Amino acid sequence: MQETRLDTARIRAARQMIDPLFLDTPLYLCEALEPDLGCAVSIKLETANPVRSFKARGTEVVTGLLAANGSRAAVCASAGNLGQALAWSGRDRGLDITVVASRFAPAAKLERIRALGAGLELVDGDFDMARERAADIARHEGVRLVEDSLDIETCEGAATIGLELVDAAPSFDAVLVALGGGALATGVGHVVKALAPGVEVICVQPLGAPAMTRSWRQRRVVTTDSTDTIADGVAGRRPIPAVLDDLLLVADDAVLVQEASIIAGMRMLLDRAGLVVEPSAALGVAAILEDRDRFAGRHVATIVCGGNVDIDAYHRWIGAAPLREP
Amino acid sequence: MQETRLDTARIRAARQMIDPLFLDTPLYLCEALEPDLGCAVSIKLETANPVRSFKARGTEVVTGLLAANGSRAAVCASAGNLGQALAWSGRDRGLDITVVASRFAPAAKLERIRALGAGLELVDGDFDMARERAADIARHEGVRLVEDSLDIETCEGAATIGLELVDAAPSFDAVLVALGGGALATGVGHVVKALAPGVEVICVQPLGAPAMTRSWRQRRVVTTDSTDTIADGVAGRRPIPAVLDDLLLVADDAVLVQEASIIAGMRMLLDRAGLVVEPSAALGVAAILEDRDRFAGRHVATIVCGGNVDIDAYHRWIGAAPLREP
Repeated sequence: MQETRLDTARIRAARQMIDPLFLDTPLYLCEALEPDLGCAVSIKLETANPVRSFKARGTEVVTGLLAANGSRAAVCASAGNLGQALAWSGRDRGLDITVVASRFAPAAKLERIRALGAGLELVDGDFDMARERAADIARHEGVRLVEDSLDIETCEGAATIGLELVDAAPSFDAVLVALGGGALATGVGHVVKALAPGVEVICVQPLGAPAMTRSWRQRRVVTTDSTDTIADGVAGRRPIPAVLDDLLLVADDAVLVQEASIIAGMRMLLDRAGLVVEPSAALGVAAILEDRDRFAGRHVATIVCGGNVDIDAYHRWIGAAPLREP
Repeated sequence: MQETRLDTARIRAARQMIDPLFLDTPLYLCEALEPDLGCAVSIKLETANPVRSFKARGTEVVTGLLAANGSRAAVCASAGNLGQALAWSGRDRGLDITVVASRFAPAAKLERIRALGAGLELVDGDFDMARERAADIARHEGVRLVEDSLDIETCEGAATIGLELVDAAPSFDAVLVALGGGALATGVGHVVKALAPGVEVICVQPLGAPAMTRSWRQRRVVTTDSTDTIADGVAGRRPIPAVLDDLLLVADDAVLVQEASIIAGMRMLLDRAGLVVEPSAALGVAAILEDRDRFAGRHVATIVCGGNVDIDAYHRWIGAAPLREP
C-alpha cells in the first residue's frame, strides 16, 4: 500500500491517550438483521459512551497532546458530534473549548455542547460556513484550530476502531464506513488495508451530500453548492485535498445512497437491533438495502458511528408520531 | 458478611467461561440524565450483544459446564430473555435447548428464541406456570432443568457484572438492580457487598409484581396470586427460598415502583440517553424518579439489563404512535 498520512504504530500508541470509556466498544453479529438484509451483519457500536459518537476517540488524542504542550484553548467547527466530543475531552483536561456550528444542527447536539461547558457560536449557514468562522476565531485569538479529518489526530483516533475490527474473529468480508469529511473512513480504511488487506473498505455517503464520493471517483476535489440530506453528520460540500489523497489509497469503493434507504436503515436498526441511531450511522445498512446482490451471503461489519438525534425528528423520520403533544 | 450460596473466586473464574462478547459492557456517566434526576447516573449497558440482555452471562456458564460434562440437552422456563440466552449459548455448544414460555411473552422475545434454533413450548399462563411445565419436561425427558436464580451458575454469571462495577473508578454510592427471580440482584449484590461493602445495593421491583420485595421485607417467602406489570422480565409470583436467603444477606433495600414511573424511566432513557430499553431495565431510573431526595447529589449506577421489546408496544408505552400503519 502507498503511504497515507496515517501511521499504524502511532494509531496503536493513540489507544493509550484515549479514555478507556471510548475503546473496545461492542462488536457483535446481529442475526436479527440477516433475514431482511440477506447477509451477516456485525455491528460496531460507537454510541454507548458519554458523547454518543465515535468522535471522542479523536478528541482524546487532540486534547491529550494540547494539554501536554501547555495549551489552554481550542476551537473547532462541528456538525455537532465533534463539538460534543471536543467539549468533553477539553473539559477533562482543563481546556477552554469553543465550538462553531450551524444553527440548523440538531438541537440535541447543540444542547449537549453547551451542557459540557464549551462556548458555542452558531452561524447562519452550513458546516462549511462554520469551518470558515472557526478558522477566523483561531486566527484572531491565537488558539488551536481543530480541523476534523485534516488534523491527523482526528483520523488516527478514529482509526483505533479499525484496530478493534481487525482483531475480531472471524474476520469480515467488508467494512461499511460512513463518509463525511473522511476522518472515520481514512482512519478505519488505513488500518484495515494495512492489517487485513483482503477486507473490502466501502465508504457510504448520502446522494444529497456527495462531494467526497464524487471526488474519490474523479480522483480530484469536487465541491458542491449545497447539501440536501437528513444525515447532518456527513453533510459537507468541500472535501479536503489531503484527506481525499488518503481516501484514494484506502477505500475500495464509495457509494451514494438515497434518503429513503437511510430512513429504512434507521427503522431496521430500531426494529431488529433495538438501536436508536442518527442518520449517518444508518448509511451502512442503507448501502446493503440498495445493493443486496453485492452483499448476499457475505459477512459485513457496519460502524454505528453516532446516536445523537432530536428524538421528535427521529420519530418523524421513522414514521411514528412525536413523543409529546405540542 | 454471612455467606451466600455464591463464591467470589468462582465468579472470577466464571468470566473465563463467558464469551467476551458479553463481558466488559459499556459503563459510563450519562450526564444528560442528571438535570432530570438530580443525581449522577452511570449506566451499565447490557443490551449491546447478540441476545440484548445480561442473561447470557449466566447461560454461558451453565452451558459451558453442561458441555464439559457431556450433556446434550437442557430445558428452561423463561420470561423471554433467559430462553434467548440459553438458546444462543446452547447452539454455540451443540446442545438441544427447549424453552417454555408464556404465550403472553413479548413476540420479539419468542421469535428470537425460535430463530436461535431452540424448541419453544408456550403455556397458556404466566412465568410460574412455565416453570412447572419446564420441570415436567426435564423429569420426563431426563434432561437438565436450568432454573433461573435457583441455579447458582445463573447468579454467578450475572455476578460478573458486579466485578465490572466494583472495578470502576470513581466508585458509586449506590447500585440500582432490577429484582425479579433474584439472579441479577443476588449476583451483583454478593460481589458489591464482598468487595465494596460501602456501596448501597438497592433492588427495584414493580408494585404490580411485588412478591420478592415483600418476601425480603418480611424475611420469609410471600407469594402473590397474580402480577400486573408491563415489566415482563421480572413478573414472578413465587420467590425461591434459597434465593431469598441470599437476597437477605446482600440487599440494603428493596423498593417497589409504579407503572407510570417505569414508563417515565423508559421515556427518559430514550430521550436523554438514546436507549431503547425494556421495562425491567428502567426500574432503576423509576426508583430515582419516585424518591429524588434519597438520591440527591449522589452517584448511582443503574444496570440497563435488557432491551428486548415489541417495538409497537414500546411506542404505545412511551406515547408515540405505532411505527407502521395496520
